[in-house]
Amino acid sequence: VSLHTGLLTLETEGSAHVIDLTEGVVRVVAAAGVAHAVCSVFVGGSTAAITTMEYEPGGVADLRTLLSRLVPEVPEAGAYAHNTLNRDDNAHAHLRASLIGPSLTVPVVRGELALGTWQQIVLIDFDDRPRRREVHVQIVA
Amino acid sequence: VSLHTGLLTLETEGSAHVIDLTEGVVRVVAAAGVAHAVCSVFVGGSTAAITTMEYEPGGVADLRTLLSRLVPEVPEAGAYAHNTLNRDDNAHAHLRASLIGPSLTVPVVRGELALGTWQQIVLIDFDDRPRRREVHVQIVA
Amino acid sequence: VSLHTGLLTLETEGSAHVIDLTEGVVRVVAAAGVAHAVCSVFVGGSTAAITTMEYEPGGVADLRTLLSRLVPEVPEAGAYAHNTLNRDDNAHAHLRASLIGPSLTVPVVRGELALGTWQQIVLIDFDDRPRRREVHVQIVA
Repeated sequence: VSLHTGLLTLETEGSAHVIDLTEGVVRVVAAAGVAHAVCSVFVGGSTAAITTMEYEPGGVADLRTLLSRLVPEVPEAGAYAHNTLNRDDNAHAHLRASLIGPSLTVPVVRGELALGTWQQIVLIDFDDRPRRREVHVQIVA
Repeated sequence: VSLHTGLLTLETEGSAHVIDLTEGVVRVVAAAGVAHAVCSVFVGGSTAAITTMEYEPGGVADLRTLLSRLVPEVPEAGAYAHNTLNRDDNAHAHLRASLIGPSLTVPVVRGELALGTWQQIVLIDFDDRPRRREVHVQIVA
Repeated sequence: VSLHTGLLTLETEGSAHVIDLTEGVVRVVAAAGVAHAVCSVFVGGSTAAITTMEYEPGGVADLRTLLSRLVPEVPEAGAYAHNTLNRDDNAHAHLRASLIGPSLTVPVVRGELALGTWQQIVLIDFDDRPRRREVHVQIVA
């Protein structure tokens, strides 16, 4: 087997900051120098998530609005148990991250990620403050 | 390492068309001829998703209804920024696809996918028109 | 290639029972004895899901409340088609499982899972009765 790895370190603003990781992942794929492979992307931490989207200002705004509506910062009634029990403020961030999930796999075909034309790999940091995030990229060829 | 790959090409109707991919994935697994492996399934494009479900008419109808309610085609107030900024109509499709995600991994055990008895691998095409979709199946053994 | 596998068997209570799998996955990683690898985790069945979260009582309660609100056991109007067509009661469990998904990949770095400090791997069993679940852990190194 050959396992190639890369680590992307990102400074986020938190508060559902969406960051396009595609260029960083492409660099790890290029460094691996493989034609066909499976590429896994993972973010450590329980308040951030990885998914794909068309990374453009409208889509980014819509995704943030959607998650604010589905999983509001403050629930309509009562309070989040995570915040109450732990004297914390980021329960919404935990919930959003669990819903979307921290991992993704993308094929590498003829040396390139098999993403759609308008499809980018993104990190979403839901935490309520700026964070340094480590994203692991692993290429199995 | 051995990496076996297969490509499933599907003509969808869009509009949250749910297609059972299991038989196609099983064919790729069989062609690989491996006993134990990790099988990755990925759809290219930012308006389609991959997940698993019991593929039967009731469950398919419920999933479509759920996503129409959680991420409506037209928001209750205002408009999606993606549609406004890009003169487009499929913002809801982008959002639903990002929520569910484009990838899945399933184990191969003694030559067979380790799915539950009532668990199928499905592609959901959320776009607002028929599309040709390419689903990559990769077997690492 | 080296593919190491482990099977975790769990008795759940159903009804959105959240079980921390991290220790079980760590045991499979340790038994594999590899430094760098991709670890895939998958649950068989269409009414259970795998994700990550900070596994503490508040977060567990919040996640259960969130999913009860987003995907209620009984819809506000009408009934779930899955239940009506199949004389069943667990349509909500199917929907929640499809939304979150049955699989996850986590990197192994210097012999350890690259999880965040407060990030655990969890199984959520959404079914409406106790179940025995099999979780497949696969290590590709």
